Amino acid sequence: MESELIRWLRERLPGHPKLLLGVGDDAAVLRLAEQSDCVVTTDMVTDRVDFRLDECGARRAGRKALAVNLSDLAAMAARPVAVVVSIVVPHDGGGPLAVELIEGMLPLAEQFNVAIAGGDTNSWDGPLAISITAIGETTEHGVWRRSGALAGDHILVTGQFGGSIKGKHFDFLPRVHEALQLAADYQIHAAIDVSDGLSLDLAHICSESNGGALLNLEAVPISDDARKLANQSSDGLSPLDHALSDGEDFELILVVPADEAQRLLADQPLDVPLTCIGRFVSDAGLWQESETGERASLQPRGWEHQF
Amino acid sequence: MESELIRWLRERLPGHPKLLLGVGDDAAVLRLAEQSDCVVTTDMVTDRVDFRLDECGARRAGRKALAVNLSDLAAMAARPVAVVVSIVVPHDGGGPLAVELIEGMLPLAEQFNVAIAGGDTNSWDGPLAISITAIGETTEHGVWRRSGALAGDHILVTGQFGGSIKGKHFDFLPRVHEALQLAADYQIHAAIDVSDGLSLDLAHICSESNGGALLNLEAVPISDDARKLANQSSDGLSPLDHALSDGEDFELILVVPADEAQRLLADQPLDVPLTCIGRFVSDAGLWQESETGERASLQPRGWEHQF
Repeated sequence: MESELIRWLRERLPGHPKLLLGVGDDAAVLRLAEQSDCVVTTDMVTDRVDFRLDECGARRAGRKALAVNLSDLAAMAARPVAVVVSIVVPHDGGGPLAVELIEGMLPLAEQFNVAIAGGDTNSWDGPLAISITAIGETTEHGVWRRSGALAGDHILVTGQFGGSIKGKHFDFLPRVHEALQLAADYQIHAAIDVSDGLSLDLAHICSESNGGALLNLEAVPISDDARKLANQSSDGLSPLDHALSDGEDFELILVVPADEAQRLLADQPLDVPLTCIGRFVSDAGLWQESETGERASLQPRGWEHQF
Repeated sequence: MESELIRWLRERLPGHPKLLLGVGDDAAVLRLAEQSDCVVTTDMVTDRVDFRLDECGARRAGRKALAVNLSDLAAMAARPVAVVVSIVVPHDGGGPLAVELIEGMLPLAEQFNVAIAGGDTNSWDGPLAISITAIGETTEHGVWRRSGALAGDHILVTGQFGGSIKGKHFDFLPRVHEALQLAADYQIHAAIDVSDGLSLDLAHICSESNGGALLNLEAVPISDDARKLANQSSDGLSPLDHALSDGEDFELILVVPADEAQRLLADQPLDVPLTCIGRFVSDAGLWQESETGERASLQPRGWEHQF
């Protein structure tokens, strides 16, 4: 029952220095850092689309719901502060399900020092949906936007791509710390996190920055899971196809000035590798360079909700 | 399709002086007033629970989703700034549905000077769910909590109660302006908005404030719709029963010092009437006073999600 869940939450959820008022009132109150702006993102994940609850269990579903939101804050180079969690659960077994969802979020929330500040629990005769809104604060280094990429910039990525369905889409660590570190030490012109697919999310940067991306496809870091998926399936997709289109890698795409890119690649300041996969150009769209130096158009592919 | 909807949103949604970055990036950026804290609330509404989409239409459903969130900010005496909107729509007809939901929100957002700052649109083979998170800012007068009521305080309410299913649950105006006006001019010890039911929400104040409420049931303002509902139905519920338990009135309960209550009732500073319905006492729970002056326990009733 709703009131019992709220009692449990108030005992279970830890406090947070920036959380002046948490679960149990009409709203939560957060004190953000002075001089900072409020960065807000929301992402909903639903049963049978973003996970299969009967296969993954509630804890992994809850963790994913939180992690995808933190990844969006990372893509802005914002410091996470708190989240609010709205869920609708099936009537039958909804109470224990809600508890397990929160239990799945708590270790990640602790790891990233994020308060679970409030929420709303509903029930119905439909499947599970989890909507989280994450609130962050800007740092003195500002936010990264999708716009801002300039012709001549280099395109860098963290980590590897493809095959996240094998497990990474649940277990990834949002690149929050990496983003804050890079924002503090390097000049980044534009950024996005890869949720829909490397090529599709890069296309978002292109359209927001009024330019294009010329990719060196041989440089795209392909995950072992992308190779496994290509081997196991008869759909004709190569490991590179998976890397470019699978999505839910939750790595960062960073567009940076050429000299800064050289410094980043030499420094390799992160625990995860940084790889240059191409450069930003003035011609709109995605492009690949052939061995003879000619450009061919590349179709962005990835996940898009159809309705 | 998702990308077309985002294009439409970016053309359709008006800017806002506090919205530094809106729809179209990984997160929105808000600049709250200096010295203010960030007030956050989230509420999800779902088809077949909070509305029947096939009967009410998408615009009213969208408006309700926004209004219930603004009502929570009103209950805190916070100034609304922006909302983010997460929805999951059925695959079939989901695009036009999403557009109509937003169109239903826009007039109310404009009326309360609230930016629609971002969101997330998903599709599935389930029914419609709308999750909104509203962000407000504190004023110099602080926030109202559910705790803070003291024995001897008077219990005041705005407006009238009961029968909201007749239409008020869609068409109500969240008491945002009223709350800000009262917070500026009067001392309020505790407050809540009535979503679950007058008696149940008052019981929340009682438990948070470690006390009880002694009600003068004859003073409870009963709406015409509560009377109509009682007349039309054979369930034996009186108009007062409806007023105490129907919920979704989205009026405010205010617990105020006795002398301040006298001033408020004499001033009647709002466009909506303020009525004293009882006083706060040290004995926990809800109570009614009989004609002979004896106290009898009163069972709080209202809406609670069962799971």
